[in-house]
Amino acid sequence: MKTLDWNTLFGERARRIQASTIRELLKLTQRPGVLSFAGGLPAPELFPKEEAAAKAAEILRQKGEVALQYGPTEGYFPLRAWVAEWLGVSPEEVLITTGSQQALDLLGKVFLDEGSPVLLEAPSYMGAIQAFRAYGPRFLTVPAGEEGPDLKALEEALNQEYPRFLYLIPSFQNPSGGLMPLEARRRLLEMAMERGLVVVEDDAYRELYFGESRLPSLFELAREAGYPGVIYLSSFSKVLAPGLRVAFVVARPEVILKFTQAKQGVDLHTPVLNQILVHELVKEGFPERLDRIRTTYKAKAQAMLEALDREMPKEVAYTRPKGGMFVWMTLPEGLSAEALFRQALEENVAFVPGGPFFANGGGENTLRLSYATMDRERIQEGIRRLGKAVKGLLATA
Amino acid sequence: MKTLDWNTLFGERARRIQASTIRELLKLTQRPGVLSFAGGLPAPELFPKEEAAAKAAEILRQKGEVALQYGPTEGYFPLRAWVAEWLGVSPEEVLITTGSQQALDLLGKVFLDEGSPVLLEAPSYMGAIQAFRAYGPRFLTVPAGEEGPDLKALEEALNQEYPRFLYLIPSFQNPSGGLMPLEARRRLLEMAMERGLVVVEDDAYRELYFGESRLPSLFELAREAGYPGVIYLSSFSKVLAPGLRVAFVVARPEVILKFTQAKQGVDLHTPVLNQILVHELVKEGFPERLDRIRTTYKAKAQAMLEALDREMPKEVAYTRPKGGMFVWMTLPEGLSAEALFRQALEENVAFVPGGPFFANGGGENTLRLSYATMDRERIQEGIRRLGKAVKGLLATA
Repeated sequence: MKTLDWNTLFGERARRIQASTIRELLKLTQRPGVLSFAGGLPAPELFPKEEAAAKAAEILRQKGEVALQYGPTEGYFPLRAWVAEWLGVSPEEVLITTGSQQALDLLGKVFLDEGSPVLLEAPSYMGAIQAFRAYGPRFLTVPAGEEGPDLKALEEALNQEYPRFLYLIPSFQNPSGGLMPLEARRRLLEMAMERGLVVVEDDAYRELYFGESRLPSLFELAREAGYPGVIYLSSFSKVLAPGLRVAFVVARPEVILKFTQAKQGVDLHTPVLNQILVHELVKEGFPERLDRIRTTYKAKAQAMLEALDREMPKEVAYTRPKGGMFVWMTLPEGLSAEALFRQALEENVAFVPGGPFFANGGGENTLRLSYATMDRERIQEGIRRLGKAVKGLLATA
Repeated sequence: MKTLDWNTLFGERARRIQASTIRELLKLTQRPGVLSFAGGLPAPELFPKEEAAAKAAEILRQKGEVALQYGPTEGYFPLRAWVAEWLGVSPEEVLITTGSQQALDLLGKVFLDEGSPVLLEAPSYMGAIQAFRAYGPRFLTVPAGEEGPDLKALEEALNQEYPRFLYLIPSFQNPSGGLMPLEARRRLLEMAMERGLVVVEDDAYRELYFGESRLPSLFELAREAGYPGVIYLSSFSKVLAPGLRVAFVVARPEVILKFTQAKQGVDLHTPVLNQILVHELVKEGFPERLDRIRTTYKAKAQAMLEALDREMPKEVAYTRPKGGMFVWMTLPEGLSAEALFRQALEENVAFVPGGPFFANGGGENTLRLSYATMDRERIQEGIRRLGKAVKGLLATA
């Protein structure tokens, strides 16, 4: 009998698919007693448990034959129609996906060939880097900060290359928390329109603004300008519950059609029960729910910033988020966030080192803090511990 | 502003991803009044509506923070452990997937490079062909019938090529309904072991046998023989409800690890609520549920066979399924199942033409009939109509 060496049996692509180092680190943070700012999880106290329980039972009793049966790949029509009305598009422009992560995989599948250039912010969402990487593209990056991507660097990159698409999170970026100002959005869109550049706008955090209102999305600005090249992703993960895995893509019908064909081969369709449940949960009282979520996160962000202002030495820089779930911290050049991670774990506090958010490396002195899952007291205690670890690292540096 | 031609913006792969012709045909069968044997849908009267309603409400009330939160990529541990115990493996050998379709996509992603040979039965499951095709493999096929793949043809193929894997549905094959006898299973396994061939066993219909018991799976036989090269797929779609999209892969831990890494990039994890719900539904009374399902499908198959025996002219051949959901029909050489499809639609009856189940073409005179969703009366009336269409086609041929 021949022995099997799986590493030689797998294809080339399998070598590119690796466990994210972060996920390995995160396992260490599950220890009891650790206050973790590491996860990107939404606040569980905001989940609509009771409402979902009542609605799920009603759905299964009253239309179990639909909720439990195979469904259309495009999604449950009433949910598509609801999203369409919410965003001012038509249902043919909406595809329901099994989380936004699936939309990222479909983007790779449909747009990226081996070696295709694809343009990202540095840092950018790790799950996007991971999804795209499986398709073997060539990553181009532009630096991004509190006001989004560096537009000069972006223009230079676009003058040299024509990427298959530009992937951006303009509002409350993961991991940096950055928010592109309106003027930057307009300028970026101009550049895209001049070049016929496809822009993928990931707007998972769209509703989590702390100010008076939301900035218009690139997608909305592009619609006004008559430009069809923006593909829009968003999700119910941050405004209802991520465990349901219900998200959506909005784009021109010809793009939706190709994504739908790709999705057929990937999971046939998103679970029907979950889609009906989301529809039942959003069709009434959604604005009030969003208000509660915004108020909650704003208070948590405030608690973290107060603690950071009190506990952090002046050598350390951090963002002041205008929305979303994250504070992005930068240690003095030359210091390692992974070294800090180990030191912090000894203080029973955890975060995510920033390195893996950079598609082409770098960012070793950066880290991401999430304030979403903890209450005010634990946030303050966690930052006190982190401050101690930071001071310890600085003292030995 | 540059105009956008999406077909040039998409990658090479997008050209391979096409709508299945069947799905286009199926749309025609949704017309009111049409009796459709076309879909591969399970019988909705077997869905555990009331039980699922009660359990879902309880889960969301009692552990909503878990059911609605992000979960581990490998799956909800108690469900993995339940599957492991059911199949006599360890939980580390089980990955929960978002339907078996996702497992097929992951297989392609992990094993197939552009041009890799992959061996399938002809006919085989269309969803597998579709999932693999996106990765650009070279399909090799061996003819398969009521007793599974032609082992002589299989041996010849394996003497010439070493495919990345052999994909098989040994029990109640979709679409042919075929069942590989025990002796053939043993012989196939010997061939695989001699060559170190990876065998993917898709056992979605494992519990739908009409006889006294189930034949041992290739996976079980391989375990007995100490051969690690069988990857086993199955699902709760046919024994609980497909709309929940909960299925699983069983394989060596090193394979599960690579699939888990690939799944991270694809949808992060299968919806947690759905996994807990499946676990709650199977952990009690599952054997009795399976008995009910078997009895129901057996009676439906019987009803279809009686009608076929009565209505079909002798020129037409069809299988007598020993389990599963399908009868496979072969028209006289030279007749077209697509032509019959059009004629049948005029009689308000539908089925799936067999052509798309053949990865490399052929099978134009074959078709698949599902008896799963209709009751006895409608099955008989549908077959009466189909008989009329067949006789019409034969008369004009």
